[in-house]
Amino acid sequence: MSTFAEPPFKPDIRLASRLFAELELRTGGGDGITRASYGRGEAVAHAIVSREARRIGMSVAADAAMNLFMTLPGSRQQTQVIVGSHLDSVPAGGNYDGAAGVIVGLSVAAGMRAANIRPPHDLTVMAIRAEESAWFNASYIGSRAAFGCLKSAELDAVRRSDNGLALGAAIDRAGGSSADLRTGKAYLDPTRIELFVEPHIEQGETLVHEEVPIGVATGIRGSLRFREARCLGAYAHSGTTRRQDRQDAVLAVARLTVELERLCQCIENAGGDITGTVGQFSTDPDVAAMSKVAGRVGFSVELRSLSSATLSNACAQLTAAADGIAGELRVRFDFGPRSSTAPTSLDTAVADALGHSARRLGIAYRTMPCGAGHDASVFQSQNVPTGMILIRNRHGSHNPAEHMDMVDFEQAALALAGLCLQPPGLR
Amino acid sequence: MSTFAEPPFKPDIRLASRLFAELELRTGGGDGITRASYGRGEAVAHAIVSREARRIGMSVAADAAMNLFMTLPGSRQQTQVIVGSHLDSVPAGGNYDGAAGVIVGLSVAAGMRAANIRPPHDLTVMAIRAEESAWFNASYIGSRAAFGCLKSAELDAVRRSDNGLALGAAIDRAGGSSADLRTGKAYLDPTRIELFVEPHIEQGETLVHEEVPIGVATGIRGSLRFREARCLGAYAHSGTTRRQDRQDAVLAVARLTVELERLCQCIENAGGDITGTVGQFSTDPDVAAMSKVAGRVGFSVELRSLSSATLSNACAQLTAAADGIAGELRVRFDFGPRSSTAPTSLDTAVADALGHSARRLGIAYRTMPCGAGHDASVFQSQNVPTGMILIRNRHGSHNPAEHMDMVDFEQAALALAGLCLQPPGLR
Repeated sequence: MSTFAEPPFKPDIRLASRLFAELELRTGGGDGITRASYGRGEAVAHAIVSREARRIGMSVAADAAMNLFMTLPGSRQQTQVIVGSHLDSVPAGGNYDGAAGVIVGLSVAAGMRAANIRPPHDLTVMAIRAEESAWFNASYIGSRAAFGCLKSAELDAVRRSDNGLALGAAIDRAGGSSADLRTGKAYLDPTRIELFVEPHIEQGETLVHEEVPIGVATGIRGSLRFREARCLGAYAHSGTTRRQDRQDAVLAVARLTVELERLCQCIENAGGDITGTVGQFSTDPDVAAMSKVAGRVGFSVELRSLSSATLSNACAQLTAAADGIAGELRVRFDFGPRSSTAPTSLDTAVADALGHSARRLGIAYRTMPCGAGHDASVFQSQNVPTGMILIRNRHGSHNPAEHMDMVDFEQAALALAGLCLQPPGLR
Repeated sequence: MSTFAEPPFKPDIRLASRLFAELELRTGGGDGITRASYGRGEAVAHAIVSREARRIGMSVAADAAMNLFMTLPGSRQQTQVIVGSHLDSVPAGGNYDGAAGVIVGLSVAAGMRAANIRPPHDLTVMAIRAEESAWFNASYIGSRAAFGCLKSAELDAVRRSDNGLALGAAIDRAGGSSADLRTGKAYLDPTRIELFVEPHIEQGETLVHEEVPIGVATGIRGSLRFREARCLGAYAHSGTTRRQDRQDAVLAVARLTVELERLCQCIENAGGDITGTVGQFSTDPDVAAMSKVAGRVGFSVELRSLSSATLSNACAQLTAAADGIAGELRVRFDFGPRSSTAPTSLDTAVADALGHSARRLGIAYRTMPCGAGHDASVFQSQNVPTGMILIRNRHGSHNPAEHMDMVDFEQAALALAGLCLQPPGLR
């Protein structure tokens, strides 16, 4: 006998399946799914969800950045609960990254409508523009614009990577108004938002490996990055140069890579949250040779953590290790420009409420960090109580092999429905 | 009071300086020295030394491969002592690699002639053709040709890397006879050669660091090479993929590189001779990114040693280490084709005699391995008692910064002179 509560209504999973299929058909091709930010694919996706929201009976509006707001009126219309994510994709990406978060919102709204249930707050499903910086190299364009935080300079200077079109011009072409955005006026009032939830497929495979359908994110990892690090040694004849006479840049960066792994292990063992990655490591293709000790290596280092302190601590340990290796092997490290994003702690009360909703319905979940950046960061930075639901997904994201089972999607929809009906009193 | 013997004659160092200067003037340019094998620069160098040998009063002959034999007659003309090296250079190389070995022979012959000393055996200074495989990708073309060991197929198939000219055609253009070479007839009779000495600048900086002017080589390191090794893991999102879920090809090859260093250290600590080098290490420039765990790395591994057993032992340890790393990190190593050259043990009696000659004259020297391949290997493989004198040289070789002091050159000339006057009775 089940001791779990019955869901008060069924989210419309058939609608969701139909929308995923239509999206795939109309924005997919031989290479995968392509929905360019402020380009054709994103426009197609917005048209699809907007049409469907109207069918459901939601009101549909857009702001100056052409973010889409699809609203089911609640009992207390002064405040709103927003469920949202983005509809653009990386070039040749997958069908679920972003879109799942919008469609799960629509499936909840459609289920509520069908069951004739009125939510306590306005329920707004938001389709956010231009989240994937593959197209315009700037973060969270749509969500920042909604809060009036997109800078005028960005509208001119940020250009689409493949065709050079300026962001402002692209927004205008998509039906928005860059002129309005330049005034800095916000479309959303953060004090009116009861809470924001971004449902998103998991971009790693933690849920796959742990056999859990959904995750509740505790935070979004920040990062600390050295995109253009170099190690400079001295080229030398491999057969005639003794080990003690070498200044071997490959060996030096190899040691640093192993050291990075070791220090991540130590931080994890102590209960800290960290990832450390050397994603690029290359000798000079024009100069390096099998029979030469390498005099130069270019490499990247990326650290991510939920904790700023952990990031700076790990970075200090890494550079200290580099100093030691440099002294021993007589090479020089030049880490080059450093860039960083701050970690985001998501709202504990929202995470607890999501967990509570899942537990009540007997849905297995785990709390976990979210490793990639999301629009949720922007909402949390505006002091909107913000949470994220992660949905189990195979093969990672940003590739055509993304694979989310609709069974897991339904678990996420149910947990979300519970939250929308009984949001914690946060304001 | 010196207890050292006086040299019986002075090698002609002024002649040597003059020849180096003329070579630099006529085969140098903005980028360095270029003496293409069977090309213009090598022809110029051969013309210079041949002219000088005639002035000294040596007889001058060439074989079908246009190796040059410059001979001062000895008391016993049935046997010869050959001092030789090559006159070609890599593109944009230095003035001393190769040329020093020919010029030191001429400076000894000129000194003998000036002192009216007749050597016990014919003293032949040999200018060997086409040692640098940068031009024709084949080893030891000239010295193999002198022993009738250049294969007919090579004359057709091996082409000059920059202009595609076939080796046979290049030899014919330089005045030789590829037709004669195809018969496989040897110009040199190894049983008539009392001994062969190749003087050469050191291509590493062991003598620089140890502050010793000359070295006597005990052998020439062989090599074991993997030119196109790969490690295959899986690309993954760097922020969302946990350490335990990664298949990180960069980390795997970094660990292998560190392991290679460790095993070389162990072999050296046990008194063995080894160098191990990862000279090339590259993630895929089109796919790898700062925010991706790397799914693929291409790299090279080269081992060199005086001992075949050490080479195969080190290789076995390396592949065992790779298996361990592959298991732990869930990646796959593919070492690709393996190539190797056998180590050459040089003649102990010749090395002893060179050492004896140096000690008698109070010249500091050290015995040492020679890390790079040389024509000396071919002579030793023909059972000619063979030795090498290495001359201190700064900045390595194969680059315009090669720097040999004439003071060190003179020490090599003196030690060589002593050997030529009193060769050990080896035959």
